[in-house]
Amino acid sequence: MLGLKLATDPRWVNLATISLEEILTDHAWCEQKAATTCISLIQAHPDKENLVRQVAPVVAEEWAHFRAVVSELDKRGLKLGRQRKDEYVNSLMTFGIKTGNQQLKLVDKLLLCALIEARSCERFRLLSIGLEEESLKKFYHKFMVSEAGHYRLFIDLAIEYGPNENYVRQRWQQWLDFESHILAEMTPRGDRMH
Amino acid sequence: MLGLKLATDPRWVNLATISLEEILTDHAWCEQKAATTCISLIQAHPDKENLVRQVAPVVAEEWAHFRAVVSELDKRGLKLGRQRKDEYVNSLMTFGIKTGNQQLKLVDKLLLCALIEARSCERFRLLSIGLEEESLKKFYHKFMVSEAGHYRLFIDLAIEYGPNENYVRQRWQQWLDFESHILAEMTPRGDRMH
Repeated sequence: MLGLKLATDPRWVNLATISLEEILTDHAWCEQKAATTCISLIQAHPDKENLVRQVAPVVAEEWAHFRAVVSELDKRGLKLGRQRKDEYVNSLMTFGIKTGNQQLKLVDKLLLCALIEARSCERFRLLSIGLEEESLKKFYHKFMVSEAGHYRLFIDLAIEYGPNENYVRQRWQQWLDFESHILAEMTPRGDRMH
Repeated sequence: MLGLKLATDPRWVNLATISLEEILTDHAWCEQKAATTCISLIQAHPDKENLVRQVAPVVAEEWAHFRAVVSELDKRGLKLGRQRKDEYVNSLMTFGIKTGNQQLKLVDKLLLCALIEARSCERFRLLSIGLEEESLKKFYHKFMVSEAGHYRLFIDLAIEYGPNENYVRQRWQQWLDFESHILAEMTPRGDRMH
């Protein structure tokens, strides 16, 4: 499962099914944050041609996902709620290199994106299996496939722009360890994607 | 003329033609800022269903424009440069209501969007007429049409979410006056869209 070191607590899908409006709302904002983060990457690195060309289509996809989730809420007569504090992503962000070497900071930004895509992919898979309604299963299967592609893209970009492949692979393992610790300490919430 | 009270200095297109790399770079970031601003509007007003449904496709369009401009730079072997300080937009932003009535603040945010779309539309038209190369003329004609549609959309949303149509029409005139004063004081720059 994409190298993740801790599988999601199996209770999570059951919790998620009982608050579909909350899960869809949280999912919509996850897509929005992914789009916004990709735009920021491009703004910060316009000179990195391949990064700009590879990440620009991801923005379009993430935004199409946001719109698809909003449509799904509409179809069901559910409301798009407000964005809530994202405890998971905020905790993850504390691990990234903040100062000093610009190259290592960029590697960390890309690996953080890869990690969130990987975990989202795992969660979408659980929803595609665990939800009861056939149309929702298909809905989440599509997201799963898309996020898996994004995960690979961010890993590849980290290798391309990092100091060398070994550094990136080692750093990726550190990110995976850190993420598993964060997740182990969080209570699974049926109203959040993470 | 979309109600604009001051036509662009005719010297601008001539200036613009001599620094196409700069103009395309500035244009790309204008599209990015438009996309980001629309995302922020949605984040701040998830409860306003029509706003979310109308503005979400605009984000997709603005981002497609960003990508089209980057492709145009690529085709010409030109580079996407860094984003520069946007003197025009920063000056306009000082006019908006900052505190107090949330409804009037939203009207101002929407009118500011409408205004930037209107001025961009005027500039795109000048480029579609004044540039020499046939493919660039067509390129900018398409942008002109699209921005005109966005201008109308933001005005309509301001009327829908404002206190009443009269207030919005009067406030729009104040914005137009303010914008013409700002523009009159700025030296036309051939390396900027505004």
